[in-house]
Amino acid sequence: MEKQMLYEGKAKKLFALNTPDEYIMSFKDDISAFNGLKKGVISGKGIINNKISGHLMQILEGNGVPTHFIKELSNRDSLVRKVDIIPLEVLVRNVAASSLSKRLGLPEGAKMRQPVIEFCYKKDELGDPMINEYHILAMGFATKEELDLIIEYAQKINQILKEYFLSKKIKLIDIKLEFGRTADGKIILADEISPDTCRLWDSITNEKLDRDRFRRDLGNVEEAYNEIFDRLLG
Amino acid sequence: MEKQMLYEGKAKKLFALNTPDEYIMSFKDDISAFNGLKKGVISGKGIINNKISGHLMQILEGNGVPTHFIKELSNRDSLVRKVDIIPLEVLVRNVAASSLSKRLGLPEGAKMRQPVIEFCYKKDELGDPMINEYHILAMGFATKEELDLIIEYAQKINQILKEYFLSKKIKLIDIKLEFGRTADGKIILADEISPDTCRLWDSITNEKLDRDRFRRDLGNVEEAYNEIFDRLLG
Repeated sequence: MEKQMLYEGKAKKLFALNTPDEYIMSFKDDISAFNGLKKGVISGKGIINNKISGHLMQILEGNGVPTHFIKELSNRDSLVRKVDIIPLEVLVRNVAASSLSKRLGLPEGAKMRQPVIEFCYKKDELGDPMINEYHILAMGFATKEELDLIIEYAQKINQILKEYFLSKKIKLIDIKLEFGRTADGKIILADEISPDTCRLWDSITNEKLDRDRFRRDLGNVEEAYNEIFDRLLG
Repeated sequence: MEKQMLYEGKAKKLFALNTPDEYIMSFKDDISAFNGLKKGVISGKGIINNKISGHLMQILEGNGVPTHFIKELSNRDSLVRKVDIIPLEVLVRNVAASSLSKRLGLPEGAKMRQPVIEFCYKKDELGDPMINEYHILAMGFATKEELDLIIEYAQKINQILKEYFLSKKIKLIDIKLEFGRTADGKIILADEISPDTCRLWDSITNEKLDRDRFRRDLGNVEEAYNEIFDRLLG
């Protein structure tokens, strides 16, 4: 299979193929935080995230959410549908943590009356600023119809995964989603879903089992990722 | 008239009366910026803002937007309806300026496809952080019905005042609104509308005629406020 690297991000590489509608997404062991200011390597993370992300996207597909995932090609590589990424990070937050806690002055772990959706403009130079739906429409990042669909999918994905994780004794605190537009204009879920992109707490002990272990120097990062893998796919 | 000071803010004082549903709002000459870090006094500003705000609120009332304004009592004082303030700054932005320019990387003065509404949580200790509609509902600052009405009023106010200002050769760049809840649960416009709370540019020269002259040390602050007063009420 002839492949050409298109893009290397902080945690993944993307390769073009000689088929027009497909890419290979390759998961690295590199880990980062604070917009790339803090960097590290977690041995085996790329394999774990590739398998977790494919597994979760298959669950979502089975529940009617279209995703870019086609199939796993190898330990680190998956075949995905080609999309133009919509330059938004869509965060769904079930429990206050991190920047939401700071923004609203809430203790970490505080329950809220309903899940919160936040949007960040994916632009490293600007520090991925938080924006809202009016900014998205005013800037033309998405049409009103696309944005409504993105919100509908985000809420559905959160609901499906919250229940699924809880069946594995994991609380889904928050999740970051990215969406893309296919050549024929469909909105589908893209990027990855993994302990890099979700906050996941043990449902009994509230132990953090996600990238916050790296961000906050809590140690046992590799063990936490392995724990999530074992609970979901072991 | 017996009155008791309830609250002194950066630019206004609020007094209770021996009638239960009314307050006196008294406009000061004090001016501030950057969450109170920069302070000054603009001679006569309180008088100008009291008269401009009352004038604009009467125009809004005449166009079907309920406001707290009852009548002018003196140069600096107006009688207003008592409300519980909803802890939100509602910004409507027609043209990119200030924090919106920085947030989105747009040059000041850039036109956008449509007006942008932003919400800030009024909380000095947190620096009045930008929040969105999900935060508002999750925190219970307003109900969904109240929030929908606030947005409808904000859009209507912006449309009415944009046209009115333009008839006076002034561009309404952006406007900050605050809303309150009356004892019987109605949402009405509160606070003030003035060169302290709007960005106003001369429609020909783009000269700034608002509080940005103070924020940015542009000089002639008093003259700018007088110019707006003369165009609207002279």
